[in-house]
Amino acid sequence: MKVGILGLGTVGGGVVNVLRKNADSIKRRTGVKVKVVLAGVRDVSQDRICDTSDITLTEDPYEVVNHKDVDVVLELIGGTEVTKDLVETAIKNGKHVITANKALLAEHGNELIQLANQNKVRLLFEASVAGGIPIIKSLEQGLSANKIESLAGIVNGTGNFILTEMKEKDRDFADVLKEAQMLGYAEADPTYDVEGIDAAHKLSILAAIAFGTELQFDKVYTKGISEITTEDIKYATELGYVIKHLGIAKRVGNSIEMRVHPTLIDKDQIIANVNGVMNAVLVKGDALGTSLYYGAGAGDEATASAVIADLIDIINNQTSNHILGWKSQEKTKVIDNNLINSEFYLRLLVSDVSGVLAKLTQIFHDQKVSIEAFIQKKVDVDNNAHIAIITNKINTKNVMNIKAKIEASDFNQDSVQILHVETLD
Amino acid sequence: MKVGILGLGTVGGGVVNVLRKNADSIKRRTGVKVKVVLAGVRDVSQDRICDTSDITLTEDPYEVVNHKDVDVVLELIGGTEVTKDLVETAIKNGKHVITANKALLAEHGNELIQLANQNKVRLLFEASVAGGIPIIKSLEQGLSANKIESLAGIVNGTGNFILTEMKEKDRDFADVLKEAQMLGYAEADPTYDVEGIDAAHKLSILAAIAFGTELQFDKVYTKGISEITTEDIKYATELGYVIKHLGIAKRVGNSIEMRVHPTLIDKDQIIANVNGVMNAVLVKGDALGTSLYYGAGAGDEATASAVIADLIDIINNQTSNHILGWKSQEKTKVIDNNLINSEFYLRLLVSDVSGVLAKLTQIFHDQKVSIEAFIQKKVDVDNNAHIAIITNKINTKNVMNIKAKIEASDFNQDSVQILHVETLD
Repeated sequence: MKVGILGLGTVGGGVVNVLRKNADSIKRRTGVKVKVVLAGVRDVSQDRICDTSDITLTEDPYEVVNHKDVDVVLELIGGTEVTKDLVETAIKNGKHVITANKALLAEHGNELIQLANQNKVRLLFEASVAGGIPIIKSLEQGLSANKIESLAGIVNGTGNFILTEMKEKDRDFADVLKEAQMLGYAEADPTYDVEGIDAAHKLSILAAIAFGTELQFDKVYTKGISEITTEDIKYATELGYVIKHLGIAKRVGNSIEMRVHPTLIDKDQIIANVNGVMNAVLVKGDALGTSLYYGAGAGDEATASAVIADLIDIINNQTSNHILGWKSQEKTKVIDNNLINSEFYLRLLVSDVSGVLAKLTQIFHDQKVSIEAFIQKKVDVDNNAHIAIITNKINTKNVMNIKAKIEASDFNQDSVQILHVETLD
Repeated sequence: MKVGILGLGTVGGGVVNVLRKNADSIKRRTGVKVKVVLAGVRDVSQDRICDTSDITLTEDPYEVVNHKDVDVVLELIGGTEVTKDLVETAIKNGKHVITANKALLAEHGNELIQLANQNKVRLLFEASVAGGIPIIKSLEQGLSANKIESLAGIVNGTGNFILTEMKEKDRDFADVLKEAQMLGYAEADPTYDVEGIDAAHKLSILAAIAFGTELQFDKVYTKGISEITTEDIKYATELGYVIKHLGIAKRVGNSIEMRVHPTLIDKDQIIANVNGVMNAVLVKGDALGTSLYYGAGAGDEATASAVIADLIDIINNQTSNHILGWKSQEKTKVIDNNLINSEFYLRLLVSDVSGVLAKLTQIFHDQKVSIEAFIQKKVDVDNNAHIAIITNKINTKNVMNIKAKIEASDFNQDSVQILHVETLD
């Protein structure tokens, strides 16, 4: 089995290292010897984390996808600009493709899957979501008897690291972000991680696999964690919750919900205890009920673990009639965010003058929204009161109306923070 | 694809129900229609949880394993007495076999696997460990690139329910066991669950899959939870630990450790937060690092989820060259329990007279054992002091020597409780 690799950075280097380290056990599992014959790199003279003495390096990636001796191409470059055409070329040349590239799949996955089906090759992407956690294989194989009802994942390690540090050490967002950048967890431009785009890429892939639908990344409601304050985290703790940045997908009748946002979840939920850079995905199936898959969402060898598992799958099942559930699926309607029902958390700053609570609760009453929990915490130096509220399960439009009314009131002193509260039963 | 079922109780009935409920999605995944044609039951006139109108029932189980139309036999009777010969007969008749029977596998798995290989049929058993959690598929497929270094599992829901209730509600073992029996979680004879035999069956299966070794159930060191007291749980909490009944398997050089015992683990470990009847398995692989698989360890449809996932696997991969890592493996040496290194927790009751602490610490000093944590809690009505101690990592023989010396001393007032303390890093 001859492998060509596109990209020999962290992940590509990790793949070469793990293939070498565990060559014996991989041979025992597959019956064949896996050999990396060719790797496309940006600069052949660069230092690498892996030994490349028996691998031909080329600066022309097309040499890899066109090479007659390559059976499987591993696309480990990332980004969508050059990779789309490379993957298409590899598929058209009859090569199986394994990719860790969530952006490529989220944006062009539907066409690529179709092309792979037409060319009777496999396109696998376990490493694209939650790093080394075998969540895609679990959804497709381990949970294959289930109709998946919902899933909720912590799929961005950077965001989870930031929220964990904010909670455990009472630090603010900007401070922890700077540390995350220094540690190499976050990019110089952290937008993809902290604004939820990376998580939305991954959620769209998970939802497609779980529900057997087409990828619809453009329909994911996406909100990041950059506006979470230490106050929010303290109020959440006091109310018995933990704030996690979750990607949530649910089947609702014949439609689905897909949303990425900071979420208050019960502190006793197992996923509330997933901390630091770790990832986890909670899945609810109609037969199994709730299950959870936890592990490293990034790192050279953790990601390599998923890439090589796909490689072993291809070798062992070349002649199988393994069918992806979504191949023949229609585009399923994604529910508009304004129509989603949820409990909500609101944090307000109001003038501490008499009659404010009556006016405030009247606003909720007018929208027919119940207040399930209420904390009025302290009066600050400007004589303002800090308030945190949990509502009953209501429509998103309702809560946005309440926010608008409060912000237009004479007692309001700051923009109203709104966060989802989710019961993951 | 024609299926014959042995046993139509909780699990068998669940399988029929899930196959019916999700017939469409299973057909989409497999391309074939799965039909249960024949079921062997003890009493054909008995009421069942599933509709049997289109299934032929027989009271002769051999009719199922000998029937020419049956392609796959699901063995869901349990126990080893009648099932061993039934499974052997099915395999010799060229039928694939799926079983949820951990006792059968733990005790006769090596011969049965060999027989299946000789007859070129598959013997699958995802449901035998941790119910619906796809832990065997994850070890074989999702983690196939890894050399597994260790695993630790909460694989008996009854035991975990008892320990959770003892901790959360300050109830004693006998009291919770009675409730577990009333709720149907524990059998009238609870020995298999509370003394760890069920967990040892499952651990021996997990270790064989993880390390690619033969099954060696008889070599598992097994200790139950019946001697855990509410004092132990309180001391553990105070020291920052949770007590869980774990099955632990580790690779140590060319040998392995296999042991089932109550274990103190750090309260912040994710597996420490697995409560009630839920199961979880923590796996450490050399590439992925630590990952965890969590879900329902029992229940009709949860177990059916695993049985049917195996069935879908057989249908989709009939022609694959899927190889179980352990097929060609030698018997690996299992390390004697006396030679295992661990931190330990000791709980003592001693007379509260002067000089006792000096004598006690001298016993530890003589065995070259350090005391890492020490609590002397209170003096009771009989003027005895309660003491809890955590040692450094030492040999099991050392701690047994300490126990013997303390119990032989003039100041000792009760047998010394000894529990393992495990760092699951």
